[in-house]
Amino acid sequence: MNKSINPNIDKIIKHAKTKQYSAEEIANKIIEGDRNFLSKAISILESKKDSDNELADEIVNLCLPYAGNSWRIGITGVPGVGKSTFIDTFGEKLIEKGHKIAILAIDPSSSISGGSILGDKTRMEKLSGRTEAFIRPSPTEGTLGGVAAATRQTIILCEAAGFDRIIIETVGVGQSETAMASMVDVFITLTVAGTGDDLQGIKRGIMELTDFLIFTKDDGDNKKRIYVARKQFETALMMFPPKLSGWYPVVLSVSALENKGIDKVILKLDEFFDRIKQNKYFEINRKQQDIQWLNEQIIYLLKENFFSNDEIQNKIKLIQKQIINNEISPVTAAKLLIKTFFEIN
Amino acid sequence: MNKSINPNIDKIIKHAKTKQYSAEEIANKIIEGDRNFLSKAISILESKKDSDNELADEIVNLCLPYAGNSWRIGITGVPGVGKSTFIDTFGEKLIEKGHKIAILAIDPSSSISGGSILGDKTRMEKLSGRTEAFIRPSPTEGTLGGVAAATRQTIILCEAAGFDRIIIETVGVGQSETAMASMVDVFITLTVAGTGDDLQGIKRGIMELTDFLIFTKDDGDNKKRIYVARKQFETALMMFPPKLSGWYPVVLSVSALENKGIDKVILKLDEFFDRIKQNKYFEINRKQQDIQWLNEQIIYLLKENFFSNDEIQNKIKLIQKQIINNEISPVTAAKLLIKTFFEIN
Repeated sequence: MNKSINPNIDKIIKHAKTKQYSAEEIANKIIEGDRNFLSKAISILESKKDSDNELADEIVNLCLPYAGNSWRIGITGVPGVGKSTFIDTFGEKLIEKGHKIAILAIDPSSSISGGSILGDKTRMEKLSGRTEAFIRPSPTEGTLGGVAAATRQTIILCEAAGFDRIIIETVGVGQSETAMASMVDVFITLTVAGTGDDLQGIKRGIMELTDFLIFTKDDGDNKKRIYVARKQFETALMMFPPKLSGWYPVVLSVSALENKGIDKVILKLDEFFDRIKQNKYFEINRKQQDIQWLNEQIIYLLKENFFSNDEIQNKIKLIQKQIINNEISPVTAAKLLIKTFFEIN
Repeated sequence: MNKSINPNIDKIIKHAKTKQYSAEEIANKIIEGDRNFLSKAISILESKKDSDNELADEIVNLCLPYAGNSWRIGITGVPGVGKSTFIDTFGEKLIEKGHKIAILAIDPSSSISGGSILGDKTRMEKLSGRTEAFIRPSPTEGTLGGVAAATRQTIILCEAAGFDRIIIETVGVGQSETAMASMVDVFITLTVAGTGDDLQGIKRGIMELTDFLIFTKDDGDNKKRIYVARKQFETALMMFPPKLSGWYPVVLSVSALENKGIDKVILKLDEFFDRIKQNKYFEINRKQQDIQWLNEQIIYLLKENFFSNDEIQNKIKLIQKQIINNEISPVTAAKLLIKTFFEIN
């Protein structure tokens, strides 16, 4: 068949696909649990169009009263650690226990490589295709409001759609782990024992965030190495001050090959949430995260307004030259630019 | 003697001490190499008074054309690593070679503990009292413009005063190391070999910044451990991508007890600066640092203007409550606040 029978056919199809729904219509469908509308709404969130931006805001605000009733579980680990395999098995167990799970990603690499993690759903064989699981790859390009803004809002939509276990995954690069920590209740680090990878596991900034340190691939030749490494980490973790949650980080291990360890993870996770719900850390932490999100968003918008201003863009080029020539200090230069900015606005 | 013979005597003395000098007078004295005026100017930099703020700006701008002709050397390491001992010996060698050295500090703890690192000059026995060395403790409280703003400006003043080797020290906590990296030409990490401290040494974020990894206390029982650790690090460092400077990080060791290793450090440092001056990284990096400083300063002022605004302060409290009650999303809330802010200004 020739596609060009009706040269407008593509356009017509595209128009039909993008039929304009109101924020109310979309939000209601999401709250009913409609996966297609959930996907559609996330695409609107990730869009860079101004009109979509407004619409996304409305949808999120309408979903907000239905959100919050989930466990938000963050999982990090370097590529090759077996993250997809872990999530696949972990997610299946959660579904067996009656949960609905959503798997989202924070992708630090997208702005650099244009690539996307979680792009390939086939890596999660058990979960892909199950109606109790919703897998959403990270957007392929940076979205408005910074790397994590779309993910934060996506969590709200997924919760409103009835998903009660939200898994956020990321790889241990740049600020993605800090961003992840700012939106989850529990922080899980996956690692493997071995010379090179120890570097990743021991990275102190991450260890301070970690509630669960889980060695993957605890089988075959790895067993002995992991046994030694677990002991080392348990000792090392005792060096850190107690966490605000009152939780002492646990070190566990799993093997996909030998199909072991996941039940223990689930058990410990139940224990974790019991603890933080009892001592109110769950609530307190979420409130703090929301306030932090507000502050980040404010700073994002202030920068956005400032640096996209035409007059500032012209002036900043000149002033950068003056700075490089040692004619003016960056402190004075910043003051002058800020003064200009507020005179314009 | 009774202090109250003249009840105003303290006031009179204080007034005499704080005789008002103009920015020109102070800058000229600094450029002549007057240490007292250098100290006075740094105190003005660290002051929180608005009038001092203006004065400080003028002084820095007047000194700027005389600044830049130094090596800016950053040194980090956890407490107990032997930083003061290292700097004491290192500094003495530099003075022997005809240099004038200034030792400054970035203190991440000051805002939390109110304390100050480098508070005790007596820890540097060889350097304290020498006219070729200027030791300045970090301010005891956070200063305007963020943790590192005062230090950056202090570098300029010290250079204008003729100090040609500027040593910036910090402890490996929070963002102080990133801040330090943003103002030095070379980044030196001091570490000790041993179970606990390996955690610090291996911290990946730091390793990526490090040009020189130096094991301290290479004597007695440590020798063997350091030998093994050095090999491990040399292997590990090869895992990192090459640096923009074209420099491959070197691993060295020193012992204050056995008085060894410092000459090699000085030699390698000469090599480092030869390299980065030849390939222009020295200049390029400084220019980039200045532009980064400008951007940080702009963001600082934007935040300062926003969050100190009375109407914003009132409104933000209400809106935070709405956020916590799930009535409004942080994204929408931020937009409303920003709108208010620009309507006021």
